[in-house]
Amino acid sequence: MLFGRIDHIGVAVSDIDAAVRLYAQQFDMREQHRETVEEQGVEAVLLEVGDGHVELIKPLSEDSGVGKFIAKNGPGLHHVAYACDDIDQALGAVRDAGLQLIDKEPRRGIRNSRVAFLHPKSTGGVLTEIVEPAH
Amino acid sequence: MLFGRIDHIGVAVSDIDAAVRLYAQQFDMREQHRETVEEQGVEAVLLEVGDGHVELIKPLSEDSGVGKFIAKNGPGLHHVAYACDDIDQALGAVRDAGLQLIDKEPRRGIRNSRVAFLHPKSTGGVLTEIVEPAH
Repeated sequence: MLFGRIDHIGVAVSDIDAAVRLYAQQFDMREQHRETVEEQGVEAVLLEVGDGHVELIKPLSEDSGVGKFIAKNGPGLHHVAYACDDIDQALGAVRDAGLQLIDKEPRRGIRNSRVAFLHPKSTGGVLTEIVEPAH
Repeated sequence: MLFGRIDHIGVAVSDIDAAVRLYAQQFDMREQHRETVEEQGVEAVLLEVGDGHVELIKPLSEDSGVGKFIAKNGPGLHHVAYACDDIDQALGAVRDAGLQLIDKEPRRGIRNSRVAFLHPKSTGGVLTEIVEPAH
């Protein structure tokens, strides 16, 4: 088994506080963690849902990846992330399977996780992240 | 707690067998269930990932919701679904919270689940499904 579960979905938002209120009031999902992730050019909030999360991401600038996504598509579903125990192994496995990588090596993600993004061109149009949560 | 977990992500595909192969070969996710869901105008395959699923959905016609989605956006992330124990209660709660519904009443989903879709206009652009799995 390469992935243990869906770790989170990433949702691109223009107004992160409005989004936090919406998810709290309408879905009873609570803010668990907030962090500016400079490496990904976003302010991010993790909301709790079972073992997984909704990750709200607000671009820090218009020319960031998420900024361009919102300019093109508007706010909405941005990516899915699968959890793994060992990201070096998982990334090696998908690389060997011929998948195109955005990140050739894992980098730091939110809450001291290690993450890598795979290119949507080789995953049927789905921006896919692999995440090894902090231990 | 309104929702217990992320039940699945829905991925719109043009070629469902190619997508099944891709997820099997590159992500080691196995086909668990396949069904034509006439009510939603799709052929669907559930892939296993932990307690949750990736739901691959191929439109049965171009003028279905998913057919129009692919024509506009190409294949990719289509919706997220949250699991609940009692969909009548959950749907009532989000309705009372002022959320705009696509389905005013639950309808039949894949594998005898009961499902309802919420309008992306009131969920920050995210097509959101509530699902009560079959008991």
